[in-house]
Amino acid sequence: MSKIKGMQSLAFEKEVYILSAASVVGKLEGEGPLGKCFDYVEEDPMMGVGSWEEAESQMQLKAAKGALEKAGKKPEQIRMIFAGDLLAQSIASSFGIVELERPVYGLFGACSTMGEALSLGAMTVAAGYAEHVLSLTSSHFGSAEKEFRFPLAYGNQRPPSATWTVTGSAACVLAGSKTKAEIAGITSGKIVDYGLKDSQNMGACMAPAACDTISRHFMDFNRQPEEYDHIITGDLGTVGKEILLELLQQKGYDISRQHIDCGMLVYDEKSQDTGAGGSGCACAATVFASYILPRIEDGTWKRILFVPTGALMSKVSFYEGQSVPGIAQGVMVEYAGKEE
Amino acid sequence: MSKIKGMQSLAFEKEVYILSAASVVGKLEGEGPLGKCFDYVEEDPMMGVGSWEEAESQMQLKAAKGALEKAGKKPEQIRMIFAGDLLAQSIASSFGIVELERPVYGLFGACSTMGEALSLGAMTVAAGYAEHVLSLTSSHFGSAEKEFRFPLAYGNQRPPSATWTVTGSAACVLAGSKTKAEIAGITSGKIVDYGLKDSQNMGACMAPAACDTISRHFMDFNRQPEEYDHIITGDLGTVGKEILLELLQQKGYDISRQHIDCGMLVYDEKSQDTGAGGSGCACAATVFASYILPRIEDGTWKRILFVPTGALMSKVSFYEGQSVPGIAQGVMVEYAGKEE
Repeated sequence: MSKIKGMQSLAFEKEVYILSAASVVGKLEGEGPLGKCFDYVEEDPMMGVGSWEEAESQMQLKAAKGALEKAGKKPEQIRMIFAGDLLAQSIASSFGIVELERPVYGLFGACSTMGEALSLGAMTVAAGYAEHVLSLTSSHFGSAEKEFRFPLAYGNQRPPSATWTVTGSAACVLAGSKTKAEIAGITSGKIVDYGLKDSQNMGACMAPAACDTISRHFMDFNRQPEEYDHIITGDLGTVGKEILLELLQQKGYDISRQHIDCGMLVYDEKSQDTGAGGSGCACAATVFASYILPRIEDGTWKRILFVPTGALMSKVSFYEGQSVPGIAQGVMVEYAGKEE
Repeated sequence: MSKIKGMQSLAFEKEVYILSAASVVGKLEGEGPLGKCFDYVEEDPMMGVGSWEEAESQMQLKAAKGALEKAGKKPEQIRMIFAGDLLAQSIASSFGIVELERPVYGLFGACSTMGEALSLGAMTVAAGYAEHVLSLTSSHFGSAEKEFRFPLAYGNQRPPSATWTVTGSAACVLAGSKTKAEIAGITSGKIVDYGLKDSQNMGACMAPAACDTISRHFMDFNRQPEEYDHIITGDLGTVGKEILLELLQQKGYDISRQHIDCGMLVYDEKSQDTGAGGSGCACAATVFASYILPRIEDGTWKRILFVPTGALMSKVSFYEGQSVPGIAQGVMVEYAGKEE
């Protein structure tokens, strides 16, 4: 039976499940509203090593090992790893997971990477190419500021629309055997460019891509927002959220009751001074692993659409006056604990 | 029937084929030994636009459109694109393929990217997730020198072991319906780190990863080198080639008669002053599209193992004293023109 659904989606039927997930975050995230949900809260942003980049790699390794331990699996039982991060040439991933000695497909989807890693991992397991795969990503406030903006020591000012890069990593083990959380389908995202150029307002840059993927998902599966407990974007923040709701309204979809955004969940906007919300690959990933997945597993939520969002830019593209296109990868997760 | 072969490989049986391929290169590559094989040789390294990065994007778009035209397909008939490049945050790909308006999974595998793009594309088509996908990558001497070394105008010296980044792009349309070139299997590569730190000798850094993937391929498919017309690495160059042959010898495999390297094919070592050979994502990709694939399609070669190789590093990881791990993705392509 064809798994192809509509123009951009795939439907999996009882073929791929989330076996385990683990999350690692920094001190600030640990002090936020979801602080108690994370598996590991690290007081030391350097993780005891010499650079932010290495620290981020250490977080990936810790998240990976955490997910493996919860799954009761050894690295050699993982057939493939799908991983990526925000840094140039994905060095956080390359150096983070080398020790696991598993086959790797490196990804780049900016902050949508967890959506991409879960999508490709799910496709792999559902096709029977692997019994277990590992999907993971990371970001780090220190390494991201250095990569995209200014060295932290410079102390540059940030407009209110700017988001705060989440320090952390999350990993999921996907499996072909039944658990309580099923990846029931995916919607592959297009690169959408509205010509916006403000890298300090990435929510606005990514909202059109989120709208594109979410509306396409509803059309492909012939569903309405009411059939989902939540539609969960990655890191649109307060500014991007408003734009998304309006864009979807124009397409005839009102998701105002279902929509939540990982970037708005991870920090307390009032007390933590984090601007428009959290961002970075780890934002959607750690919120998914620590907060969303448990609510699927215990049946609180029966079906969600997880839509990590990415802003496709680099320092060079910014300096050269390019726009900031967005991309959003949709992953539909359902409670699978009822039967049997 | 399980497609899983051994520890790291998948076997596809008459499920995924290469429908078309197109290559775009710069002037230097056009003057090289394979000059007449490429579809487009560009005299202007800037492609008429304002920066090397944009020029690289233009080359991706031209390669993509060329492959689509040869396949007789429109962009909307491509269900997914698998693309990546060498630049930070993969901007050559993001800005190159946005115009096609297709779902995208962004990749990072350094110079192994064409192997990764073909592998994931083949997995997608063989699983019935798509009738057609597009796999592509690019690199550009100007943008790569700026990204990894010095601005070109600085005119820094290069040791003989250094390789020369190929300017170009290549794209392949993969399809579920029969052509004369079948992707018969893949071997997924591990990140292999021998602790080498010389980014001016990337052949040496990547050779251990190539050895790992090639030897694993032989074991997984229970085959010997003699059963392949050629084992074709991406960009090991003259220095890396010697190391690869020796490492494989130690594992009991003599591939000296089968081995060729895209980096050694693309330039004339004596007359073109390109150091140890070509490199960059476009090296393996353009040689595959222009030189290797036609020899499969006309039956000159019955079976090859294509093994693009990547050095996983960034300027930051280099400055921080990190090693340069390697990765190599194996794609087995067979002549499929005999029957019917």
